[in-house]
Amino acid sequence: MNIETRFGGRREKNIEVFDSTLRDGAQGEGISFSIDDKLNIVKALDYVGVDYIEAGNPGSNPKDLEFFEKIDQSKMHRAKLVAFGSTCRKETMPESDENCASLLSAGTDVVAIFGKCWDLHVTDIIKTSLSENLRMIYDTVKFFKDSGKTVIFDAEHYFDGFKHNPDYAKSALNSAVEAGADRIVLCETNGGCLPDEVESITAETCTAFPNSVVGIHCHNDSGCAAANTMAAVKAGARHIQGTYLGYGERCGNANLSTVMPNLQIKQDYCCVPVKNLERFTRTARWISEIANQSLFKGMPYVGGSAFSHKAGMHIDAVAKESISFEHISPESVGNERRFLMSEVAGRGTVLKKISKIAPELTKNSPEIAEICARVKQLEYEGYSFEAAEASFELLVKKVLGIKKNFFTLNYFKTIVEPEENAFSASAIIKITVGDKTEITAAEGNGPVHALDNALRRVLEGFYPQLGDVHLTDYKVRVLEPQQATGAKVRVLIESADESGSWTTVGVSADVIAASWIALVESVEYKLMKEE
Amino acid sequence: MNIETRFGGRREKNIEVFDSTLRDGAQGEGISFSIDDKLNIVKALDYVGVDYIEAGNPGSNPKDLEFFEKIDQSKMHRAKLVAFGSTCRKETMPESDENCASLLSAGTDVVAIFGKCWDLHVTDIIKTSLSENLRMIYDTVKFFKDSGKTVIFDAEHYFDGFKHNPDYAKSALNSAVEAGADRIVLCETNGGCLPDEVESITAETCTAFPNSVVGIHCHNDSGCAAANTMAAVKAGARHIQGTYLGYGERCGNANLSTVMPNLQIKQDYCCVPVKNLERFTRTARWISEIANQSLFKGMPYVGGSAFSHKAGMHIDAVAKESISFEHISPESVGNERRFLMSEVAGRGTVLKKISKIAPELTKNSPEIAEICARVKQLEYEGYSFEAAEASFELLVKKVLGIKKNFFTLNYFKTIVEPEENAFSASAIIKITVGDKTEITAAEGNGPVHALDNALRRVLEGFYPQLGDVHLTDYKVRVLEPQQATGAKVRVLIESADESGSWTTVGVSADVIAASWIALVESVEYKLMKEE
Repeated sequence: MNIETRFGGRREKNIEVFDSTLRDGAQGEGISFSIDDKLNIVKALDYVGVDYIEAGNPGSNPKDLEFFEKIDQSKMHRAKLVAFGSTCRKETMPESDENCASLLSAGTDVVAIFGKCWDLHVTDIIKTSLSENLRMIYDTVKFFKDSGKTVIFDAEHYFDGFKHNPDYAKSALNSAVEAGADRIVLCETNGGCLPDEVESITAETCTAFPNSVVGIHCHNDSGCAAANTMAAVKAGARHIQGTYLGYGERCGNANLSTVMPNLQIKQDYCCVPVKNLERFTRTARWISEIANQSLFKGMPYVGGSAFSHKAGMHIDAVAKESISFEHISPESVGNERRFLMSEVAGRGTVLKKISKIAPELTKNSPEIAEICARVKQLEYEGYSFEAAEASFELLVKKVLGIKKNFFTLNYFKTIVEPEENAFSASAIIKITVGDKTEITAAEGNGPVHALDNALRRVLEGFYPQLGDVHLTDYKVRVLEPQQATGAKVRVLIESADESGSWTTVGVSADVIAASWIALVESVEYKLMKEE
Repeated sequence: MNIETRFGGRREKNIEVFDSTLRDGAQGEGISFSIDDKLNIVKALDYVGVDYIEAGNPGSNPKDLEFFEKIDQSKMHRAKLVAFGSTCRKETMPESDENCASLLSAGTDVVAIFGKCWDLHVTDIIKTSLSENLRMIYDTVKFFKDSGKTVIFDAEHYFDGFKHNPDYAKSALNSAVEAGADRIVLCETNGGCLPDEVESITAETCTAFPNSVVGIHCHNDSGCAAANTMAAVKAGARHIQGTYLGYGERCGNANLSTVMPNLQIKQDYCCVPVKNLERFTRTARWISEIANQSLFKGMPYVGGSAFSHKAGMHIDAVAKESISFEHISPESVGNERRFLMSEVAGRGTVLKKISKIAPELTKNSPEIAEICARVKQLEYEGYSFEAAEASFELLVKKVLGIKKNFFTLNYFKTIVEPEENAFSASAIIKITVGDKTEITAAEGNGPVHALDNALRRVLEGFYPQLGDVHLTDYKVRVLEPQQATGAKVRVLIESADESGSWTTVGVSADVIAASWIALVESVEYKLMKEE
């Protein structure tokens, strides 16, 4: 079976993409998918345009079995669902092996079968003879072919096996090919290989199996999973396996959101329909949300910082010529350019950032100099505006004299005291809006939580729109830890309503005071936004 | 100048390591170092054994200038400190360029100078002639050589420049070489190149400059920074630049904690003294703590999951033969194997840790099972004993029934309220020791500081030895940021007296309660130690 010619590309440049987020990805530390999570990830992967979605091992756990019962494959646009399992056990036939039976019961057109290719694993781990292992591979692949399945053979530990005993590794592959395997996938299971080894071993294998579609499956233990995958493609592999965000056991699998743009944008291969590239960043955010992992900011192509510029000189240069500091256009993968505000940023950055608020200002306006000076001073005191764009906007409006005063604080007090084996935290707050003064109190998990609750409670009477706001993230950074409990802290608070999210910052020697500053700015930003 | 022959290795296998965590790393989003942070990172990098530590640009901001004034270079063991700056400006001489002057004022033996090598940047960004740029490079390198400095020339955008205009890129390098540059470093500034390009361009450059030590500086925008660095070394580079944990602008720099073991363990190159490899994991934790970034679990070699096994079959296999699922031995880089969801490995570790307190216990003692169970439960709740061995020791003594009760808390209360444009924090505390009860109050910068002061004040009457103790570090980490101000926090407190330091941990939804737990354990540990 050849790789489908598609998207109008040249056949020899077509690359089949196989995602294992739901199987190998689920082996990653801290990753655990519910059945609904798995159904949603299938949707996301199908949307981005991969060819195969490996969805689990119905023989290994009841959750995977339930998933296969629930999923409606007819609703998938492009991707084919794959069930995963091992060869039959030693001294058994696939017909009487319960794992093989449960693989069939998953009801997928495609199955992925892994078998041992490293002699050490055959003799010392599963403890059988080298010939019996070949028999297990042959019989299992044959069994699924006879059942009408497309069979992807995962050659486990192929590279380590090849380094120790190349003839045996190749004979394992040969057993799969002779039994009719549709794909033979070379697995760099331990993740320790480097690109040169992967390239040469893949090339030799492609030569030995000229009529097979060869695949590659890499792990990132040497930090080279992406490069290794590309080295294999260079050597002739036309089927790549990985996980969309690199999730996987130990250091993870090849990150497909990195490898696909590398191949497609830079080397003219075709992995997904061209228009789907713009879906990459959105899909990355979607999948990380489902997995409840924060998306690593520095992730190539799709991370929040992938096109963020901080140094003043870089920002000036990008504004002149984007290719001066960007390897591709961020829009091509649905991402966006960001200019970070920081003490190393210059007037140009400030100007660009405030162009919507005050389009009339120029690089030489005294207001710009004043804003730069305040930012520098505040950052010296421990503030950091690069993640707190809402606080930056409030600062700008303060300097420009257009910041409205929504309320005046008369007084607040927080109290923490022990109460029946726990601690009780409460806050009292008194504010004035116009000519009306209100006082209220609230409890919380801690003094900051209590203060947050009290502030919102007392203000909601005046500004009911605050009812939409909820705090989505709270970060504390101790700035001079050597001063121990007397150190300054920086608090970042992320808030959200239906239309988006914003972040504010506060700094003080007192964590409660720092939180208070950020809380107040969160509220002010919301009210300002609504005006 | 040649690369020093060292550690008994073969000269052609020696690789010089240049770390830029403090300069390029500080360009990363969310990374911001105080002067103390920078001083501590220098210690960590010197401990792990890099050759050069690029510490900043004294001309670009006052914080860097203050750092260079504060650091005592005579205390560094191996590493040399490097100040970083650009060539002189167009139409000026280095002698009259203030950035060049401030670079000299940093007082380092080594300077790194970056200059433009991509014709587009010369004509369209800094807008000068191609020949004037060569003049700027030559004059600046010459100026610093004449001032007695070792000069590392960073050839900015060398690869993109080479792809557009190879002759010009090489003539930029040539200007640096003719002026006496000690190293010429090829910078893959935009991070978009793939290993094959890096290898071929580096090889061609090494051929063109046979008498120069060629370096490589990669970014990770294609997820290939590690592989690109190794491709350059294969092609002849013998000086590698990166940041220890990959921090850096956009997608970060080449991760040295990945590249160095790849080169040294797998390819027989020599980057650091062999015994230093075991310091890699500890250094990674240390630097990420200072940077207040959580160490990415999946980071090759040094991450918490790098040798973690989750799948049952893998755990069985690793127990039989570690190489079956591990590319190197975790101990070789100071890391450890972990079996997730399994306490078998836990018992061995616990046994090793408590051998001094309770040498009579064995793997099957019920106390060991109880300790494992408690640790598991507490770590599930958010505790982390890895950095808090004093708390772990107290936990062990509690389980063994040998923990003495030094005092009983009757009551405490902390109060924060505004006071003349600032906030006042105070604490009241009442304790009982034996049959005596005392109450006292204290103020502080914040409620935790006030509580710390009050606790020490009330206890010193009973235990004067507490007068020696001072808190040396205080860290707060928010554990479930999605719950915002209601999230759990983990507080680590490091305390010291004349004979050493110890760390304790507390977890609670309330930062004051978490701090209280850690403060009490700090005091208890001191009193226990003195018994």
